[in-house]
Amino acid sequence: MQEREPVEIVEVGPRDGLQYESGFFPTEKKIELIHLLSDAGLARIEVTSFVNPRFVPQLSDAVQVLNGIRKRPGVRYSALVPNLKGLEKAVLTPVDDMALFVSASETHNRKNVGMSVDESLEGFADIAPMALDAGKTLRGYVVTAFGCPYEGRIPADRVKHIIDRYVGAGVSEISLGDTTGMANPRTVGELISEISEGLGNIRLGVHFHNSRGLGLANAYAALCAGIRVFDSSVGGLGGCPTAVGAMGNIATEDLVNMMEEMGFVTGVDFDGLMKAVSLVKEVLRTEPASCTFKQGRPIWK
Amino acid sequence: MQEREPVEIVEVGPRDGLQYESGFFPTEKKIELIHLLSDAGLARIEVTSFVNPRFVPQLSDAVQVLNGIRKRPGVRYSALVPNLKGLEKAVLTPVDDMALFVSASETHNRKNVGMSVDESLEGFADIAPMALDAGKTLRGYVVTAFGCPYEGRIPADRVKHIIDRYVGAGVSEISLGDTTGMANPRTVGELISEISEGLGNIRLGVHFHNSRGLGLANAYAALCAGIRVFDSSVGGLGGCPTAVGAMGNIATEDLVNMMEEMGFVTGVDFDGLMKAVSLVKEVLRTEPASCTFKQGRPIWK
Repeated sequence: MQEREPVEIVEVGPRDGLQYESGFFPTEKKIELIHLLSDAGLARIEVTSFVNPRFVPQLSDAVQVLNGIRKRPGVRYSALVPNLKGLEKAVLTPVDDMALFVSASETHNRKNVGMSVDESLEGFADIAPMALDAGKTLRGYVVTAFGCPYEGRIPADRVKHIIDRYVGAGVSEISLGDTTGMANPRTVGELISEISEGLGNIRLGVHFHNSRGLGLANAYAALCAGIRVFDSSVGGLGGCPTAVGAMGNIATEDLVNMMEEMGFVTGVDFDGLMKAVSLVKEVLRTEPASCTFKQGRPIWK
Repeated sequence: MQEREPVEIVEVGPRDGLQYESGFFPTEKKIELIHLLSDAGLARIEVTSFVNPRFVPQLSDAVQVLNGIRKRPGVRYSALVPNLKGLEKAVLTPVDDMALFVSASETHNRKNVGMSVDESLEGFADIAPMALDAGKTLRGYVVTAFGCPYEGRIPADRVKHIIDRYVGAGVSEISLGDTTGMANPRTVGELISEISEGLGNIRLGVHFHNSRGLGLANAYAALCAGIRVFDSSVGGLGGCPTAVGAMGNIATEDLVNMMEEMGFVTGVDFDGLMKAVSLVKEVLRTEPASCTFKQGRPIWK
């Protein structure tokens, strides 16, 4: 590893973090949170989702959020887009990037979106050109890439198949999701090495949940395997009641601390980030799943 | 890494975990906890400390605990021994191993035991032969090895100096302590590589606290650097009010899960371990700082 090498953090708290919160995070507080995150130097923020609001009422204000934020120059704002209906809404907003998602597990994908994996992928092939024509870049999530509570281990070639289809549709970045916290540092390194070949210009990121406390260990393993794009969630927000064992994403502040302590550059101002965590704590009235929020960063004399 | 390679877990919960708990963990519950831990397959357990009970009243029952436990064949029981007075008490008990400790930081050592590092080491040189004569093996902790909140970075040669003195006194295992959670995966790998040379038969272990959530990431980095001895604490017990930023050790169950998921053999029965965590929870009436206690291990179909 090179000293002072940049790593890219994709803040997914406003979307992945809030989508299954039991209460509604008020729209103006979401906007305030996104402003605090961009002010803290987070240059990529997944702000909302165009999933059917019947299923994710917490993010039913997607359009208002996107129209309400003051876009900070240099920051890219993304939203989850599940299908044509979602895309048609999303293209009318100032969103920069659109994120598609499909599970590497058939069972999980059916439970999640009621379709087979290939049906999901065919849908994306249809809508991706419209997103690209509207000037949006595309990210593709591979959900349960490191294991599925219903199907167990996912063969790397299924992940690879999904990536190939994404790339064919015009996706420029892939994020491998450990949706229910089944990855470990060994499988992280192995999967990345098995699928990295032939990716060309396609960027590969990782998206870890901390269900078994392995989120940062997995992030470190991914770093060692060459990954430089990491998803995380302010205050460790997140979790998924429909997926067995799902818990919050790794906390952005803990990830920032690890990376900066290791000599990488995140571009994130830790004190600014603490303001965003404080807002989350204040609105949700729970102690964030975050170590550095409680402990601060190490003090080096 | 080799498949199905053993790793050794040193359970330090009954000592490091309980020493700064605000309440007193009743002696019979300590004994019950130690029995549950040995029944779960933990083959090394640090059960108590002979530190002055004025400073650590929580472990003032060291003699009763050691005399009260039913020693399980194949399990080694250790106790922390700070000085001659502690040693004189410890040698009369059925303890197998004695653990000495000194800080790599002068300031931290003075605050912790009121002596300079070299004064501590001279004391150990005096008492070590008595322990060895009594048939006890010796472990030496290097506390704040990865950084000190008062002094910052600790040069590797100071750690090396302490190890050399320990080895000269007859210590057969060293444990590098990240007492206040200042290590990161990079410094873990670097320190281990800088001090490993010339250790010969001396075993090197690591002792991580999870203050900034990096405990398991650091354990993985240590594993990659060749370490096979890991300290941890049932239920993530621990913390130290006198050291800025100290929090619990990494949770034994989370460490066991990581190692077993990666294909290493810990010899620990996870369900048995859960009984020990449940006892901790019941006695302390707090939710353990443990992910796998809440989430269980991943289910692989």
